[in-house]
Amino acid sequence: MLDFVDSIETKIASLGPSKIDSPILSKRKDVSRHFVAENERIMVNITQSYIEECIRNKKSFLSFEVAGPRQKIYFDPSKLKCGVVTCGGLCPGTNDVIRALVMELYHVYGVKNIYGFQYGLEGFISRYGHPLVELTPERVASIHELGGTILGTSRGAQDIGEIVDTLDRLNIGILFMIGGDGTLRAAAKISEEVLHRGLKCSVIAIPKTIDNDIYLVEKSFGFDTAVEKATEAIRAAHTEAIAAYNGIGLVKLMGRYSGFIAAYATLGLREVNFTLIPEVDFDLEGEHGFLEALRKRLKKRRHAVIVVAEGAGQKFFADQDLGTDPSGNPRLGDIGKFLVEKIKEYFVSIKMPITLKYIDPSYIIRSLPANANDHVYCGFLAQNAVHAGMRGKTAMLVSCRHNVYVHVPIKAAVIKRKIINPNSTLWFSVLETTGQPRLKN
Amino acid sequence: MLDFVDSIETKIASLGPSKIDSPILSKRKDVSRHFVAENERIMVNITQSYIEECIRNKKSFLSFEVAGPRQKIYFDPSKLKCGVVTCGGLCPGTNDVIRALVMELYHVYGVKNIYGFQYGLEGFISRYGHPLVELTPERVASIHELGGTILGTSRGAQDIGEIVDTLDRLNIGILFMIGGDGTLRAAAKISEEVLHRGLKCSVIAIPKTIDNDIYLVEKSFGFDTAVEKATEAIRAAHTEAIAAYNGIGLVKLMGRYSGFIAAYATLGLREVNFTLIPEVDFDLEGEHGFLEALRKRLKKRRHAVIVVAEGAGQKFFADQDLGTDPSGNPRLGDIGKFLVEKIKEYFVSIKMPITLKYIDPSYIIRSLPANANDHVYCGFLAQNAVHAGMRGKTAMLVSCRHNVYVHVPIKAAVIKRKIINPNSTLWFSVLETTGQPRLKN
Amino acid sequence: MLDFVDSIETKIASLGPSKIDSPILSKRKDVSRHFVAENERIMVNITQSYIEECIRNKKSFLSFEVAGPRQKIYFDPSKLKCGVVTCGGLCPGTNDVIRALVMELYHVYGVKNIYGFQYGLEGFISRYGHPLVELTPERVASIHELGGTILGTSRGAQDIGEIVDTLDRLNIGILFMIGGDGTLRAAAKISEEVLHRGLKCSVIAIPKTIDNDIYLVEKSFGFDTAVEKATEAIRAAHTEAIAAYNGIGLVKLMGRYSGFIAAYATLGLREVNFTLIPEVDFDLEGEHGFLEALRKRLKKRRHAVIVVAEGAGQKFFADQDLGTDPSGNPRLGDIGKFLVEKIKEYFVSIKMPITLKYIDPSYIIRSLPANANDHVYCGFLAQNAVHAGMRGKTAMLVSCRHNVYVHVPIKAAVIKRKIINPNSTLWFSVLETTGQPRLKN
Amino acid sequence: MLDFVDSIETKIASLGPSKIDSPILSKRKDVSRHFVAENERIMVNITQSYIEECIRNKKSFLSFEVAGPRQKIYFDPSKLKCGVVTCGGLCPGTNDVIRALVMELYHVYGVKNIYGFQYGLEGFISRYGHPLVELTPERVASIHELGGTILGTSRGAQDIGEIVDTLDRLNIGILFMIGGDGTLRAAAKISEEVLHRGLKCSVIAIPKTIDNDIYLVEKSFGFDTAVEKATEAIRAAHTEAIAAYNGIGLVKLMGRYSGFIAAYATLGLREVNFTLIPEVDFDLEGEHGFLEALRKRLKKRRHAVIVVAEGAGQKFFADQDLGTDPSGNPRLGDIGKFLVEKIKEYFVSIKMPITLKYIDPSYIIRSLPANANDHVYCGFLAQNAVHAGMRGKTAMLVSCRHNVYVHVPIKAAVIKRKIINPNSTLWFSVLETTGQPRLKN
Repeated sequence: MLDFVDSIETKIASLGPSKIDSPILSKRKDVSRHFVAENERIMVNITQSYIEECIRNKKSFLSFEVAGPRQKIYFDPSKLKCGVVTCGGLCPGTNDVIRALVMELYHVYGVKNIYGFQYGLEGFISRYGHPLVELTPERVASIHELGGTILGTSRGAQDIGEIVDTLDRLNIGILFMIGGDGTLRAAAKISEEVLHRGLKCSVIAIPKTIDNDIYLVEKSFGFDTAVEKATEAIRAAHTEAIAAYNGIGLVKLMGRYSGFIAAYATLGLREVNFTLIPEVDFDLEGEHGFLEALRKRLKKRRHAVIVVAEGAGQKFFADQDLGTDPSGNPRLGDIGKFLVEKIKEYFVSIKMPITLKYIDPSYIIRSLPANANDHVYCGFLAQNAVHAGMRGKTAMLVSCRHNVYVHVPIKAAVIKRKIINPNSTLWFSVLETTGQPRLKN
Repeated sequence: MLDFVDSIETKIASLGPSKIDSPILSKRKDVSRHFVAENERIMVNITQSYIEECIRNKKSFLSFEVAGPRQKIYFDPSKLKCGVVTCGGLCPGTNDVIRALVMELYHVYGVKNIYGFQYGLEGFISRYGHPLVELTPERVASIHELGGTILGTSRGAQDIGEIVDTLDRLNIGILFMIGGDGTLRAAAKISEEVLHRGLKCSVIAIPKTIDNDIYLVEKSFGFDTAVEKATEAIRAAHTEAIAAYNGIGLVKLMGRYSGFIAAYATLGLREVNFTLIPEVDFDLEGEHGFLEALRKRLKKRRHAVIVVAEGAGQKFFADQDLGTDPSGNPRLGDIGKFLVEKIKEYFVSIKMPITLKYIDPSYIIRSLPANANDHVYCGFLAQNAVHAGMRGKTAMLVSCRHNVYVHVPIKAAVIKRKIINPNSTLWFSVLETTGQPRLKN
Repeated sequence: MLDFVDSIETKIASLGPSKIDSPILSKRKDVSRHFVAENERIMVNITQSYIEECIRNKKSFLSFEVAGPRQKIYFDPSKLKCGVVTCGGLCPGTNDVIRALVMELYHVYGVKNIYGFQYGLEGFISRYGHPLVELTPERVASIHELGGTILGTSRGAQDIGEIVDTLDRLNIGILFMIGGDGTLRAAAKISEEVLHRGLKCSVIAIPKTIDNDIYLVEKSFGFDTAVEKATEAIRAAHTEAIAAYNGIGLVKLMGRYSGFIAAYATLGLREVNFTLIPEVDFDLEGEHGFLEALRKRLKKRRHAVIVVAEGAGQKFFADQDLGTDPSGNPRLGDIGKFLVEKIKEYFVSIKMPITLKYIDPSYIIRSLPANANDHVYCGFLAQNAVHAGMRGKTAMLVSCRHNVYVHVPIKAAVIKRKIINPNSTLWFSVLETTGQPRLKN
Repeated sequence: MLDFVDSIETKIASLGPSKIDSPILSKRKDVSRHFVAENERIMVNITQSYIEECIRNKKSFLSFEVAGPRQKIYFDPSKLKCGVVTCGGLCPGTNDVIRALVMELYHVYGVKNIYGFQYGLEGFISRYGHPLVELTPERVASIHELGGTILGTSRGAQDIGEIVDTLDRLNIGILFMIGGDGTLRAAAKISEEVLHRGLKCSVIAIPKTIDNDIYLVEKSFGFDTAVEKATEAIRAAHTEAIAAYNGIGLVKLMGRYSGFIAAYATLGLREVNFTLIPEVDFDLEGEHGFLEALRKRLKKRRHAVIVVAEGAGQKFFADQDLGTDPSGNPRLGDIGKFLVEKIKEYFVSIKMPITLKYIDPSYIIRSLPANANDHVYCGFLAQNAVHAGMRGKTAMLVSCRHNVYVHVPIKAAVIKRKIINPNSTLWFSVLETTGQPRLKN
């Protein structure tokens, strides 16, 4: 759990000083609402040894700004216009975030002008012709029951200049961007261009990644829901596997660069015999390769369940030029179908009959509404995003660290991706559960 | 619902007369258990016009023997040995049937020797080396909670002679066969060979087909569960479709020869715009073809949901020799992937960007445990199978007609497959719901 | 399944002859829609012995009119106004019925004026001030996802004269009434008064009863969904029971006069040891009474699960005057709490410590949205209700018999309630599953 | 989230030095398993201001020992005998904890002798006669699919002396106790007595409380699952409420001393209008009381949903002597039924007709199997409990703080209960969602 943290920028940019009394102050006389002090921060590394080392070496502590409502804010709610956009693949909880943004802005701060940009970054670009959507409490009241995003989404970059033109023309004061790695990079560029032009527009990101692979983000929303549903596919694979003599159930799960869903789903339904993830190399052939290990498992137990993250084993496609997807990510080789082929070939070659069932539950998972845990989590993320925006913070994302909501500079979060440490308790627990060997010659 | 019924054989073969008092008679003094009279039958066609026509033309009525416990039975429970086998693909409820067979034989009739043959028909063939499994109430008590089949299964035929040798050697008095079309045909041959050899072995089939396509079987077990789960995939497809501009969600569902799951799932979640089934021909190209209809739909509503049964559009593979699967069925062309290709090609050709998401939930559906409705249904099917077997009936299957459990000669049920009548209320309801045009030039 | 059918009225009243071509005729050239002939009927009793007896005795067959679209209809769709009302307790599928009524009227027949009366029969009575609701395809498009009823509901009778005044004033041509026994009686009176006044208003009922206890109605909508969910409560009771030494789990299920939910839920999750229903008397005290049987069960297995229908054991409240509920039904004694008291007292008296957990899932069940099976069923019921109404039929309900949709005169359906025959296969299966003794001294 | 932490004991007792090489060392050559250093600790308060204050004032930091595997352990696995016991009410995930304890002990450390004590603390007391249960990997392999506890449970204290006698006689080296507040107190006493007698027996607690109210335990296992299911009851209440004119849905949820389930369920399904918890006082009567607020809500929206934690409003029972339950906790007044009575009385008194539906889902929630998130969490808790026990730690519980698994002295955790801070973001979010006023005169 205690991953190493590099020397990173942790200071949050802001549009200017906070001079306006928060409307929360006068909201309810009966509750003494806790405000977060301007300079409240928590430690990034919370081990005693780190603290002591810093003291010894007179090094300053790495810390993050704590999220939450400030007593003084930057924007005047009565004049503020806000924008919301959702980008990239579907992820459970996106509508919860939209709903909570609107409810917090409208009911807590009194902001009445909230607009949705449709179909991702396309929504800022006039030639697509996607109209703005007005977001009111009535419009969003029940959307948390739905999967997907009511704003629509798309993949891929758009011209930063034209995006900022649109923000300027519409006089958007806070732009909330819900999206993954690509969206974070776009958000960073937009906020730079905004500052460069001297506009007064906060850019606040709420990181969305079903893969749970954003650096400095402990757990991304929707991840819990995804893992829960992924176990259903594992159960199906297991049922199919044990019903056949030498039955194999193979499940491909999300995870382009990191195997978090694969690993947690394995721990969530402990019927998996091999978990293959991008972070841990494996060989197919040879005495210690995967195929021989699979043969041994079948020999011993007559069935096997395999979970493979979509980004695992990409070395097998090294000689193919797969191009990039609309988001600009390199296209991955389809490891699921590849394994199906290789497994079938291998067992034909050794004349051992098998029955192989392949399950790819991707869209069934991505399109789910959030479970209760994610409903709650999305609500808190969005509320903290609103507090940050109202205070005039910018170029940041809301995250949770050590169970405390914090502000993280986007630039720090896009340095690298979060991946599974193969020496961690998490991966060791997976290995214990699956009982899989090293799979390397 | 009132499908036309051909002139079919409806008389049930029997191993001999019933001379033994049913143990049910003495079971509970407080309940006057209803026994079914030996000759109780129900009409196959229940319209008044049919009855009147028969009377007018002095034609005899087509009728089925009613299932249920008989006062006198053929086998002596204390000496009887029974066998159970499950064949073909997984289907929700199979373990319920096994459980209820064992419970009814053991507790109601007092049969103590019940054996499971493992991995389908392979279980009868010595060279596979699959050991017999003893089936006791303890062993089966909780299996209804599990999908799949505790006996394992396999596809494909085995030597009838060797199967009957095994039955003979083990002195099996009743063989319960749970399987689909191929299994029914095997059951017919086994019962023939049994009679030919003068053995005393009843062969009772409990028809299993997730496609719900067995002739004279109103609804096969597991179908309800399958439809319920299939709607989840439709919901996912719909969520993905509306989240994209020109979004398309395509779901492939089971249904090799008949589109029942596709049709009922469409009625079970009314978000489908095109339902394609084997029974209704459609064109891809041309003014009235599917692709142009899809384009129009997108133009109008900017998203579309398509459900395709796996056996639909097989004409597009007419020029390919796909061979047969292990069950001896002709291999189908993969209409799901075919449509994905064709749709993508088409919209590239007309330069209209789309986002297409393809979902194939097959094994997630097949491997489910039964829902409550199927739990109940499987229980009744199995109980009636036991009653039929104890009475010495053979070469028959248990079915439900007009909500009455009946005995149907296997030979009658394998004449042809049950399919959707395109002029039926069912199909018309699907057309109303989808609003799809004719899709034919 | 073959319950005895009395000599009942089976002729359907009609407002007049059908002279207008059905708009379905011209709807789709590609589908030759099957129309139901005016005089198409199916047998009520479908056993061969009944038919032969009728022929022998020259008795006419009891038969029901088959439901479905007629080629000629009574009402001119372009001028027709329709009303919909929902009455009584919540039941899964009610919104499905509303939705399908609207969709069928609007899209298939072209009826544009459809109104919902709010909060049950109160909606017709001006002093309540509940406004009419316009029902359009847009309004109802997604309501099948919701439990309850978008029209609201209430219990209890209202003045028939004022109801008919309202129908007359609003010029309602077809009134669709969704409700239970009380609603059916109201529907009968309304249609009488309508005819008496010479108005042209069809009254078509869609029977709604979660108890599944309406006579001549094979299965009421929502029943499947209710049974499915009821098994969840049984599972909870079982888990609690086995976790304690001498643990008892007691579940109260719906069923005022009939134990269908209790019986099917018992078969749907076979962990119940005692099922108590209104149709089968039982004693509490004494050597063969329930309490002693419970003690024996605990002695043997150390846990017990009990399912009791709310209408069971009402003899224990015979000396109490409980009055009537707003629907005019006699109030039932609370058998659940009564059993809790009696069981606790008994085991205290014999100094045997027990742990008793009581579960009443009533509203959690009633408020569910329909499952897929009920979605489909509700759609067909409503479509057939529309066909009947458009044809000018009145004073009838739509039902399903032998899996065929039929028209049943309301007067025939309210003669008595459908109950479980204690000598039926259904009840015998319950007894086999629970293993419960007679429970009578 | 940053609750104030008192000056508490954070040092963990231990049976003695660790001299034996952990078997993990030699387990897998391919993985360099991360061991936790003996003295690894994390900060209890992680704010920068706290750290700086400590430095300024030369105060030592409050910190917890980090959980996880140690390179050197105390017990020799080949000779060790372990015991497991589960106490108190059911909670999702208990079987997961049992399973993971057994798997970790058996497969990772090679401990072969693991015993379950049945029915809570009764299992140690000979007069109850509950036999020991041998816990093997086979026995526990599938129990995570089941709710409840396979070991059974009971409430209430037993003689500490006799418990320790039993541990001594059976030569138990590590006792794992899964239970709530009462169990923690018992564990503290047992470990004291063990040390006093000079026995070598570690006592490790895994805190179990569905109420999530144990001090210093961030989130107790099963809580997520409970909240998820609780939202189902809220949905039912909402559906019932909106279906009636002046409809009220009232849900009672678990929470004797703290309203965490009520609060999180409110945030998990945002349809609640009043959330009543033990931590926040409210009045019934008077201008600002709950009943008048409820009337205003109905007047405005015609329906209302109320969630009440079972421990809320206990002041209304102050004059009643309710005694204590078998666990020795004071019996609570039944606030659910009390509110039902009071609400009905009030609206009768003001002649405003209402429809009130009351839902108590308690046992349906408690008896659930864990959801995926809790499956994973229970696994980690149990593994860390095993690591702690093998190291010879005692009188401690495993907890999670700032997302790091830690060792907490039981004595520190039983000082007080964890409750909701009415000035916290959590409670403020609930107030925002419900819109409820102060409810105090």
